[in-house]
Amino acid sequence: MNEDLKIAQAATLEDIETIAAKAGIAKEYLEPYGRDKAKVDTKIFASLKDRPDGKLILVTAITPTKAGEGKSTTTIGLVDGLNKIGKKAMGALREPSLGPVFGLKGGATGGGHAQVIPMEAINLHFTGDMHAITTANNLIAAMLDNSIYQGNPLNIDPTKVVWKRCMDMNDRTLRSITIAQDKKTNGVERKDGFVITVACEVMAILCLSKDLHDFQQRIARCVVAYTYDDKPVTVKDIQADGAATVVMKEALKPNLVQTLEHNPVLIHGGPFANIAHGCNSLIATKLALKLSDYVVTEAGFGADLGAEKFLDIKCRIGNLHPSAVVIVATVRALKMHGGVEQENLQTENVEAMLAGAENLQKHIDSIQAFGLPYVVAINKFVKDTPAEVDALLSWCKDHNHPVCLADGWAKGGAGMTELASCVSELCEKENHYAPIYDVNDSIEDKLTKIATTVYGAKDVEFSDEAKAKIVQFAKYGWDKLPVCVAKTQNSLSDDAKLKGRPRDFTVHVRDLSISAGAGFVVAYTGTILTMPGLPKVPAAVHMGVDENGNTYGLF
Amino acid sequence: MNEDLKIAQAATLEDIETIAAKAGIAKEYLEPYGRDKAKVDTKIFASLKDRPDGKLILVTAITPTKAGEGKSTTTIGLVDGLNKIGKKAMGALREPSLGPVFGLKGGATGGGHAQVIPMEAINLHFTGDMHAITTANNLIAAMLDNSIYQGNPLNIDPTKVVWKRCMDMNDRTLRSITIAQDKKTNGVERKDGFVITVACEVMAILCLSKDLHDFQQRIARCVVAYTYDDKPVTVKDIQADGAATVVMKEALKPNLVQTLEHNPVLIHGGPFANIAHGCNSLIATKLALKLSDYVVTEAGFGADLGAEKFLDIKCRIGNLHPSAVVIVATVRALKMHGGVEQENLQTENVEAMLAGAENLQKHIDSIQAFGLPYVVAINKFVKDTPAEVDALLSWCKDHNHPVCLADGWAKGGAGMTELASCVSELCEKENHYAPIYDVNDSIEDKLTKIATTVYGAKDVEFSDEAKAKIVQFAKYGWDKLPVCVAKTQNSLSDDAKLKGRPRDFTVHVRDLSISAGAGFVVAYTGTILTMPGLPKVPAAVHMGVDENGNTYGLF
Repeated sequence: MNEDLKIAQAATLEDIETIAAKAGIAKEYLEPYGRDKAKVDTKIFASLKDRPDGKLILVTAITPTKAGEGKSTTTIGLVDGLNKIGKKAMGALREPSLGPVFGLKGGATGGGHAQVIPMEAINLHFTGDMHAITTANNLIAAMLDNSIYQGNPLNIDPTKVVWKRCMDMNDRTLRSITIAQDKKTNGVERKDGFVITVACEVMAILCLSKDLHDFQQRIARCVVAYTYDDKPVTVKDIQADGAATVVMKEALKPNLVQTLEHNPVLIHGGPFANIAHGCNSLIATKLALKLSDYVVTEAGFGADLGAEKFLDIKCRIGNLHPSAVVIVATVRALKMHGGVEQENLQTENVEAMLAGAENLQKHIDSIQAFGLPYVVAINKFVKDTPAEVDALLSWCKDHNHPVCLADGWAKGGAGMTELASCVSELCEKENHYAPIYDVNDSIEDKLTKIATTVYGAKDVEFSDEAKAKIVQFAKYGWDKLPVCVAKTQNSLSDDAKLKGRPRDFTVHVRDLSISAGAGFVVAYTGTILTMPGLPKVPAAVHMGVDENGNTYGLF
Repeated sequence: MNEDLKIAQAATLEDIETIAAKAGIAKEYLEPYGRDKAKVDTKIFASLKDRPDGKLILVTAITPTKAGEGKSTTTIGLVDGLNKIGKKAMGALREPSLGPVFGLKGGATGGGHAQVIPMEAINLHFTGDMHAITTANNLIAAMLDNSIYQGNPLNIDPTKVVWKRCMDMNDRTLRSITIAQDKKTNGVERKDGFVITVACEVMAILCLSKDLHDFQQRIARCVVAYTYDDKPVTVKDIQADGAATVVMKEALKPNLVQTLEHNPVLIHGGPFANIAHGCNSLIATKLALKLSDYVVTEAGFGADLGAEKFLDIKCRIGNLHPSAVVIVATVRALKMHGGVEQENLQTENVEAMLAGAENLQKHIDSIQAFGLPYVVAINKFVKDTPAEVDALLSWCKDHNHPVCLADGWAKGGAGMTELASCVSELCEKENHYAPIYDVNDSIEDKLTKIATTVYGAKDVEFSDEAKAKIVQFAKYGWDKLPVCVAKTQNSLSDDAKLKGRPRDFTVHVRDLSISAGAGFVVAYTGTILTMPGLPKVPAAVHMGVDENGNTYGLF
């Protein structure tokens, strides 16, 4: 895996001013962070307002293995591939979270010869957006508890605080804690918990805001607690909206970097797709659309999570109209869906792979339900055998699914030209994109439509707690918002163990919460956690800096 | 107070490359963060190794009021004043913490016409050093608890974890918490707490490391817990030293900014002086000494805290030899020491001020005890009356103390030329600097020397807990390290209420902890808190962004 870091460290970076010029970003809007990354001042929008938007291409995937199926690699490779065939294309990606970097999965900057660089910086602190989000979130928390402590003028019930603290770290011990213990001067004791930063509402707001002004209005609306008589208390009520906006001022600006082949990519915002809405920022996507003819973006995990939220939440709020969808599949993951155990995934098994293809079929069905043209991209792994790859190609052709091999990992843009051509043709096709549900449907109906149409469930069961929340939320008009489902990424269902294409299952909604600032209702299914834990041997134990000051162990 | 932000926002910034050129930093070592701040690659040291060091000037102060007495303003003004009289001078300052920024005190970038800019950026996220420190600290904490959870191979006693989590925020509710509650899968339940980032050992190590390699060795040595049979467990034992170093790689590079008069200043590292060692980084100080003939630096709070630690810890570890000390005094604070209540400090009261001068006298005595030439700088406030200022000047002259008026706030460098001339003369004087204690003294003797010589105490009393720690620490050789006292900044004593020059008092050491990586023993006196709280009306409630995208309310 350290191959990736080696390739990235050996790469020659073009000066970010050169990349900006290539992307059509005038120097006056560029704020360099070092020589290899920059923020783009959002004042640039005024200068681009008469330009038509480019075509928007979404990269999604089948239900992945724990290591991920190379959605970022495919996205980055496709940007290079499109440029290779003479198209003006940019990427719009998510920022990595330190949780996976130090935990299990590693970074999120692609792999092999399809990477964005500077890989190390992007995977670590980058331009500080994650840190700003963490700070804004925790400032609100501190001001909330301070208000309770300093005489509680807003009559907040300390048992009804809903705003959690956050940290960009896999730290299971912070999931459920008691704060303000031992002394009265430590505040008012209560139960609390941390979520990982990529799951917090500030992250969602960053990603769904049109501009800084919109951000300030959204953050002001966030519900942080309820009073003793059950009235919502907002960030505005505790007077934290202004300061939180000041903290986020720089973070609202998209970040510009480059692929290994020196094509421009904006990386901005990074909510997880299992516990949040899973898409990069609307500001970056809109900027890329103004700057480029083709914009390739990705949404986290499988099409049941990231793509559903991209198409039902982000595109709806941002008034975006995607032109095509790439569905990434791997031989490895299909074998898993066909019943092969983790330790045997590297052994050839055509039969299992073909059995697992029903998972791919379900994700294709879902994308068709949204009315969008698609292509299956087979992301090639070194250990895939020719028999497996041929069988998967044949399966796609037999089922009339457009399909291309994607070999960005080994060959960069040169391995992605076939897919690039196919995608550019799809973009010319008529499409009938529409969200799956109407926002005016009831919360129950919206969730049922997602569960049955996208997950393939039989029905949805609501806990008593969820039912009570639905009644409560309707009182405040929150039932007219889109819904964001927190669900395991390891299955189409809410049970991580069910691989392939589960049928006749029930989705269990155990609780709901309101993200009034982001503008959606969150539905928690199964046992999904909003704060991950570290594995037995965290990736972090292999990292260090050698005697020459070079990082090792980061992947 | 918003005057400061107005002046800073109206300032014309020179491009940071111009400032770097002025400071003698070659472009190849400069890593710009935007157009107005940059990190300096520490590879520059090799190119400067044959240059002689400049003169090092420390700015300290009397026991301050809660608003601070303008040490940063004086430091910055003195840099401009020295340049004004034709000397090549640089500043070496500390990075502000977000705790005071959102809490009571505001930013730490000077005031009026003696400021460093970009003021907003420096006071908020700057180049991300605080965030990197927070992340490194909390990664170590997460890996520690993960080791306990994943079978506890190191036999760690969960009740003997000494490494706390941290956050750069005033959040009293995190002082004393219980983590890992409710479910076994949330980890092993135990008592825990957060400190403010500027109090954590990673910050101290950043500030005392010679280079990245030294940092990695120091972080590896940090004690995080004890086993069931009382053996120390280190960061190296939990295999977090490499990853923590990777996280801190960029943060180890000093940050370059400019004064309003476009003179270069390095701002790097920022431990509080009441709960930590209170000095900017050794790397930045050493770089400034190589680049400049005069380096003006500051150490937090009064001379009992920052200056003592600068002279006993930082200069000892870094082999620095300061040339002169500036002791900042204000009419306002002296009146407080003379018994005037907060609400009456703006009323003329010569008598009280002269009574309060005994506080100044004690700080002068302490600096003399270190064998250093000094000058009193009267930092002028608009509300000071001529009678008060004249009386203070006369008092200094009557007591044979060199004294100058410092008017950097109103006039910038032009108001600081007299002090600049005086300081440059002091630098030519022979001096007999030596630390107050020998590191080979016992912990009791070291603390007694600091308390009696610097604080003016009668003696020191150790709690049973502290006594037990002294015995334990000696077993590991930690008794041969310098000591860092955590003590209130509001009094020379450990009782915040005792103003002026307390006499015949006892200092109470209630507990000790080891910072084996930073290389000192911390002694906790009185009731000093390592996590502050927000005041009734936090500064944050006044902050926001206006319709033009400009920040207001930051000071």
